[in-house]
Amino acid sequence: MAKTKIGPQPIIYPMPTFLVGANVDGKPNFMAVAWSGMANGSPPVITVALYYKRHTYRGIRENMTFSVNMPSTDMVKETDYCGITSGAKVDKVKVCKFDVFYGKLKSVPLIEQCPVNMECKVMHILDVGDHALVVGRIEEMHVSDECLTNGKPDINKIKPFAYITTPHLYYQAMGEVIAKSHSIGKELKARE
Amino acid sequence: MAKTKIGPQPIIYPMPTFLVGANVDGKPNFMAVAWSGMANGSPPVITVALYYKRHTYRGIRENMTFSVNMPSTDMVKETDYCGITSGAKVDKVKVCKFDVFYGKLKSVPLIEQCPVNMECKVMHILDVGDHALVVGRIEEMHVSDECLTNGKPDINKIKPFAYITTPHLYYQAMGEVIAKSHSIGKELKARE
Repeated sequence: MAKTKIGPQPIIYPMPTFLVGANVDGKPNFMAVAWSGMANGSPPVITVALYYKRHTYRGIRENMTFSVNMPSTDMVKETDYCGITSGAKVDKVKVCKFDVFYGKLKSVPLIEQCPVNMECKVMHILDVGDHALVVGRIEEMHVSDECLTNGKPDINKIKPFAYITTPHLYYQAMGEVIAKSHSIGKELKARE
Repeated sequence: MAKTKIGPQPIIYPMPTFLVGANVDGKPNFMAVAWSGMANGSPPVITVALYYKRHTYRGIRENMTFSVNMPSTDMVKETDYCGITSGAKVDKVKVCKFDVFYGKLKSVPLIEQCPVNMECKVMHILDVGDHALVVGRIEEMHVSDECLTNGKPDINKIKPFAYITTPHLYYQAMGEVIAKSHSIGKELKARE
């Protein structure tokens, strides 16, 4: 299998598509973020990478808190809008008709229309280049009742989507289940 | 839309499924990692979160380098195997029949069968709880020629998959394209 070196590039698959929120000067604002990952299990910790000049980043620094909201495929238009506009110029909440609510942390705006919402407290901010890597402890999670199955968030009801950058810029839904994890690999144990 | 508080949990959708590699005592080893995200664009930086006791983590500390290999859906069995076994007990490379190659960084084992391979140098290791958050600069990327379209990695040829934890543990392929990004959101500009 011949390989080509393409140089270092920020490309991984799949990346999630989130709406990261913060109050900026006391007003809720949200931006689209794909550069995010889990960082820890106990306690649950998440990373989000934000370009320093982002309006939302100013709000995160102001309050040292932020939200991670997971949109459904039916919110792709609003999500994209939040990625191509700045809260310094437009009121995204008004344009997108988001219903904003607050939970445990009073400075963390959450979007009711998103099936999953996380309230986060900043633990660290790492300077890694042109982006700030914000590392936050998840303090509380809210899930829309119709997206729960036996009390657990159900991806098939949440309908999240990925942000893809190559070969083109687009959003992609999740597809078919291909295998059970912690299970299918056991078939190789016979080779040990 | 009624919401239920489920408490802080390490659940995001979609999470990628990677095989993170390192030489441990000079021998290549790989583990399955879903807790990973992009952290920076210029230079490209990636995070991977590893439980401290992992054999692979020992190799990362030893060399301060690691690889991120992106498997295709046809490698789900090998990927799962690397997630449920320890390199301290079995030779995963042998069992999975991985062809290992080395690129720019001589201490970073790469899996030829994976369509995308990243060579990374550790920039930071953050103690965030029971996992180490390893922050690495991507030094080089290798892509299998048949997965390139006009010189760019093509997700439709790479066929990556996600790791899902709720409501059940499984791996899920990518689905349909739902919208162009930096595009569909413009439809809301009329509301500004």
